[in-house]
Amino acid sequence: MSTPEGISTPARSPYDLPDVSGLVVGVLGGTGPQGRGLAYRLAKAGQQVVLGSRSAERAHEKAAELGCGVRGADNATTAAESDIVIVAVPWEGHAELLASLRTELAGKIVVDCVNPLGFDKQGAYALKPEEGSAAEQAAVLLPDSRVTAAFHHLSAVLLLDQSVEEVDIDVLVLGEERAATDTVQALANRVPGMRGVFAGRLRNAHQVESLVANLISVNRRYKAHAGLRVTDI
Amino acid sequence: MSTPEGISTPARSPYDLPDVSGLVVGVLGGTGPQGRGLAYRLAKAGQQVVLGSRSAERAHEKAAELGCGVRGADNATTAAESDIVIVAVPWEGHAELLASLRTELAGKIVVDCVNPLGFDKQGAYALKPEEGSAAEQAAVLLPDSRVTAAFHHLSAVLLLDQSVEEVDIDVLVLGEERAATDTVQALANRVPGMRGVFAGRLRNAHQVESLVANLISVNRRYKAHAGLRVTDI
Repeated sequence: MSTPEGISTPARSPYDLPDVSGLVVGVLGGTGPQGRGLAYRLAKAGQQVVLGSRSAERAHEKAAELGCGVRGADNATTAAESDIVIVAVPWEGHAELLASLRTELAGKIVVDCVNPLGFDKQGAYALKPEEGSAAEQAAVLLPDSRVTAAFHHLSAVLLLDQSVEEVDIDVLVLGEERAATDTVQALANRVPGMRGVFAGRLRNAHQVESLVANLISVNRRYKAHAGLRVTDI
Repeated sequence: MSTPEGISTPARSPYDLPDVSGLVVGVLGGTGPQGRGLAYRLAKAGQQVVLGSRSAERAHEKAAELGCGVRGADNATTAAESDIVIVAVPWEGHAELLASLRTELAGKIVVDCVNPLGFDKQGAYALKPEEGSAAEQAAVLLPDSRVTAAFHHLSAVLLLDQSVEEVDIDVLVLGEERAATDTVQALANRVPGMRGVFAGRLRNAHQVESLVANLISVNRRYKAHAGLRVTDI
């Protein structure tokens, strides 16, 4: 990271983050491209990962394809057996799934990475959830969980491409509780090239989720798999 | 820019951009920090720049402080004498100013860089303009202009810091008309370190404008002047 003269900040984080290497990470909706990509990268980095799906059988199958010790389970078992639960389901099924897992997700760190988008002939556009954002919807539906938002801007193609050694991206992490966002930042930092950056409270999640519509425009124009880096930190 | 194996894209732009070196750039609300910072960087890069303000006298004074050949004028004169007009006024005065300059801005490329934000004890949060975004409000008020959105995420502190040689940032450029967004990208590319990146249509401007709230959170946490880079392009 470039640091203009007179401004000196450390490259990864200005403070100590917790050791998350022993935590189990579940991925709800883990059989989709985004979920599989995250599961693959985290498992490859040494994390214990459970891939969740509505169908346990499908989860087993997709987990076996990924290798790296990834296990498969139905979504409820995944939630119950994990310390950190990443929500990577399509926006359409978001509210229903989370409402059904309130008990299993109680006390857990929930990481919402869902991007509510619509698509038409002109490409993608932001949908505005009634609660403000997917993450805020999760917080409403899961009052006993520690809800954060992160991992929105990752390219599933790059995550799943085994020839890509380092994922060149910053992960914007949002949430209300410092210990929870620190944990999610530390989790992102486990993946080579990835960096977790605190980027505000959940009330500012909508624009982070929606920015994926812009990255889709970038990808179309530049034939790329665009991500973001935050400069000067 | 890192390019994972198998994905090869040029570093700055996948297509030819127009030569904008002869165009006059006006900055409405140019006496504020953001406007002055942009005027300074563009003028230093060799662009002809007119700094606009409600008060011509104040504009003259601030222009003289910046040097680099920057001229000062009242906002209406600035609009009339410029080819590209950057709108850098506070959100509160945005609609009124643009409505008053519809004639002067007809046919011009207008670059809206206004971020509608609210502030309270917990920091910054996004305001949602009735039209969808500041840029879409500009498009409604200026039907005869070529409205784009860009230059949202720049740190005025870094722009105005003469010891900073290169501004380490990508400028997301949005708009409906390819020739207009190409021109604004080319303008951004004039500033050392800055790169203009096409990032979608105006209907996706709200999240780009609002993301400044997140950058403010980053700045508070990391004691930084954060900006963005788009990866893989």
